[in-house]
Amino acid sequence: MLKAKTVNESVTIMTEHIMPNDTNPLGNLMGGNLMRWMDIAAAVCAGKHCGCYVVTASVDYVSFQGPIHLGDVITITACVTRAFNTSVEIFVEVVSADIKGGNMRKCNDAYLTFVALDDVTRKPTAMPPVLPLNESEKQRYEAAARRREIRLVQSGKIKLEDAELLKAIFKA
Amino acid sequence: MLKAKTVNESVTIMTEHIMPNDTNPLGNLMGGNLMRWMDIAAAVCAGKHCGCYVVTASVDYVSFQGPIHLGDVITITACVTRAFNTSVEIFVEVVSADIKGGNMRKCNDAYLTFVALDDVTRKPTAMPPVLPLNESEKQRYEAAARRREIRLVQSGKIKLEDAELLKAIFKA
Amino acid sequence: MLKAKTVNESVTIMTEHIMPNDTNPLGNLMGGNLMRWMDIAAAVCAGKHCGCYVVTASVDYVSFQGPIHLGDVITITACVTRAFNTSVEIFVEVVSADIKGGNMRKCNDAYLTFVALDDVTRKPTAMPPVLPLNESEKQRYEAAARRREIRLVQSGKIKLEDAELLKAIFKA
Amino acid sequence: MLKAKTVNESVTIMTEHIMPNDTNPLGNLMGGNLMRWMDIAAAVCAGKHCGCYVVTASVDYVSFQGPIHLGDVITITACVTRAFNTSVEIFVEVVSADIKGGNMRKCNDAYLTFVALDDVTRKPTAMPPVLPLNESEKQRYEAAARRREIRLVQSGKIKLEDAELLKAIFKA
Amino acid sequence: MLKAKTVNESVTIMTEHIMPNDTNPLGNLMGGNLMRWMDIAAAVCAGKHCGCYVVTASVDYVSFQGPIHLGDVITITACVTRAFNTSVEIFVEVVSADIKGGNMRKCNDAYLTFVALDDVTRKPTAMPPVLPLNESEKQRYEAAARRREIRLVQSGKIKLEDAELLKAIFKA
Amino acid sequence: MLKAKTVNESVTIMTEHIMPNDTNPLGNLMGGNLMRWMDIAAAVCAGKHCGCYVVTASVDYVSFQGPIHLGDVITITACVTRAFNTSVEIFVEVVSADIKGGNMRKCNDAYLTFVALDDVTRKPTAMPPVLPLNESEKQRYEAAARRREIRLVQSGKIKLEDAELLKAIFKA
Repeated sequence: MLKAKTVNESVTIMTEHIMPNDTNPLGNLMGGNLMRWMDIAAAVCAGKHCGCYVVTASVDYVSFQGPIHLGDVITITACVTRAFNTSVEIFVEVVSADIKGGNMRKCNDAYLTFVALDDVTRKPTAMPPVLPLNESEKQRYEAAARRREIRLVQSGKIKLEDAELLKAIFKA
Repeated sequence: MLKAKTVNESVTIMTEHIMPNDTNPLGNLMGGNLMRWMDIAAAVCAGKHCGCYVVTASVDYVSFQGPIHLGDVITITACVTRAFNTSVEIFVEVVSADIKGGNMRKCNDAYLTFVALDDVTRKPTAMPPVLPLNESEKQRYEAAARRREIRLVQSGKIKLEDAELLKAIFKA
Repeated sequence: MLKAKTVNESVTIMTEHIMPNDTNPLGNLMGGNLMRWMDIAAAVCAGKHCGCYVVTASVDYVSFQGPIHLGDVITITACVTRAFNTSVEIFVEVVSADIKGGNMRKCNDAYLTFVALDDVTRKPTAMPPVLPLNESEKQRYEAAARRREIRLVQSGKIKLEDAELLKAIFKA
Repeated sequence: MLKAKTVNESVTIMTEHIMPNDTNPLGNLMGGNLMRWMDIAAAVCAGKHCGCYVVTASVDYVSFQGPIHLGDVITITACVTRAFNTSVEIFVEVVSADIKGGNMRKCNDAYLTFVALDDVTRKPTAMPPVLPLNESEKQRYEAAARRREIRLVQSGKIKLEDAELLKAIFKA
Repeated sequence: MLKAKTVNESVTIMTEHIMPNDTNPLGNLMGGNLMRWMDIAAAVCAGKHCGCYVVTASVDYVSFQGPIHLGDVITITACVTRAFNTSVEIFVEVVSADIKGGNMRKCNDAYLTFVALDDVTRKPTAMPPVLPLNESEKQRYEAAARRREIRLVQSGKIKLEDAELLKAIFKA
Repeated sequence: MLKAKTVNESVTIMTEHIMPNDTNPLGNLMGGNLMRWMDIAAAVCAGKHCGCYVVTASVDYVSFQGPIHLGDVITITACVTRAFNTSVEIFVEVVSADIKGGNMRKCNDAYLTFVALDDVTRKPTAMPPVLPLNESEKQRYEAAARRREIRLVQSGKIKLEDAELLKAIFKA
């Protein structure tokens, strides 16, 4: 089995300055552009964690609160939460501020999953485990199992009635 | 109440040719770039339906099957499914083929929601209802209520135990 | 001889949202950007028709009526008109509307020609004939011969006095 | 009447290095990208000549000979040929070479027309006449009248039978 | 006088994934693209420090060691070193690694200066002092005076014989 | 030894129209974008001079005077000054004007150095000497030796006390 790695070893920070072509006619960042940057930051983070090429497998539900304006600066932080066989879940958080560093606020977060690919065969390959250290890392690690079960239901790989963790919630 | 509109009145088709900058080092379309195009196609569709400016409110779970290669041509079709007060749900489907039109296959689908904004106040404004006509339009219209309930849970606006439609599924 | 294909088999629809970098200092779409999109849509259409790689051989006279504004949405429709040995003529039509779907109007049309290339030799290869079905397809098919003669004159491949179809018009 | 200007006062030279996103899957410059650059060079030249904003009115027939490759360097030279009331015709010539300056060859030429716009009204405004000095400038000046007549026919503004210069050619 | 700020309050980290259009025909990052990103990271850092708009005043000598390849990931860290009246010096460091996080190496560093602009007048305005805390921050703070003197010589604002700090070096 | 080449054989002129994405929130060209274009123009010039691939080795101090606005047109002229073994120094000058050709002014100049690379080994290879002809070419040729010495000091390749040309200045 591969040696576990800490979250800090692969944390990735990205800063983007919102330019005119990133915005809609109202002068606000388009949702799709933000998702594109979240995917790049998360892919770099996943690649660092596994030390191999990765491909995006899925993006969980993302909601957008409040507009990000032309000229604002966003900071995207991506970190691993938990690995499953050949895949890893990445947590991405977006913070925005104006060009002067003012009006700082959290804009978004999302969970993305990536699959590790072998260099030669380009087939899925083993992902190193994640070693959560502090409290928030441990909480995200624990909750990752439930999020994964939801994805298996959403992608039709398991039936809703076989989603044990979900059922437990409804029964609680 | 605003006059209902059919799905056909706002259906939007987008064709994109995969260029080098759209791909990762393995020569495959990056997931984030695909999400960016899906957001643009869906926003144009939502804007046509309501005849006003729109902003992306959320993107549901998206999964990526099989690589889309450099030089491939993708066709993105976006159509409205159902409106709720000031928001509308858009269904987006992505089909890919090589530059010669061969190896055509469905790659993705996703549901995005948009909010209509008033021109002057830039506050949410009423969305025209959707009039589903054929069978698949009616099915997507019906199922939209359940998808919306899941979003309300995911964004923390209602509690899981108040999600009536979801509970009915688990009890069935 | 290759099997003829209908126009519908390769029709290509492209939607573009006019972004700041597409416009001139007056806020209107630059002519060259529109020509670039027309070329991409037409190339995708020609590639689908022949099932092979294509290169742009020529673009006929294009005129620009009325400005297309920042934030407008344009829909480009490309379809084959007629094939000649190793080349095919594509008809491209551009329709524009504002982001709300209002002020819809025809902006442009143009004829482009493409040459089919063999995968291995990268030399020109045979193009499947076009089978025109409805009235407008048949009219474009018929008129394609005259447009081709004009191109042969313009590119210096035949002399003006040998342009039989053109001379017939002047004598009529 | 505005004071005539020489061709040299507004000649515009543009150098572009062909990057991956400018090319098709065969690694050659796409025709539409070349047209986009030709339009920018010609617009800058027309703006210098009239000292006002301009918009593209039309692009004459363009043909593409021989591929321009990834990494090649193209030099686009744009110069005025003749002005007509509120419009001016620009001659654009494209020369290509590899990154080392070798394999230099002429690739294309084209005629584009632009309309001068008044700053305040944004309506067409008077264009300064062109003063041709050397032999090739004078030839292009003379031939511009015939090219203009062809455009008037092509855009449906005059009938073919009223195209006096064209008829003279056929009768010669 | 404005309140001094620490270096940490404005440190800015930027991650970029090298895409095809960023590279030359040898597949290596072009120097100019790296300078463009260094300027953006430094400008964001300077803006955070002064809480106002900034413009690039100068970039000191930059040298490029060893190629950065297509698909590599670079991390750009920008921090303030010292403020002078209306300007601030920013230190930028570039570290590169391959997509797997391997072959990590320092690529570049550079000093850029920015001028703070008043929101309304758009004239230069006072810059908050920098409060260096640790040893490397203090060293960069001290050496900034000499680098500034070199810039004043290079831009012709003082004569070489009046560059007291430089002369002291040569006499030592 | 390679045959010397004149400055005119490789002079490179580039015209760029300032588009929205090139500017900061104040509507002025960002310094980093200008540096990116200066690097491209200089690299094309260096490649023409040596007839081989080149990479950027260094960029000397660049200062920015006065804003260049959205919609302005800049003309970048790059020419060789002097070659040293496997490297060449390029002088780049930037002139800006508004879209109408008015308000023309010099904005910047800079010296960049490039290294010639052998096609096969990709190792540094011999650079042809520069043959300066007119007075300004000769002055830049002479002064290049001193600028090179400064670079050797700045990159730590020689010690300040071994910089003979610099010391002579201070002693004069």
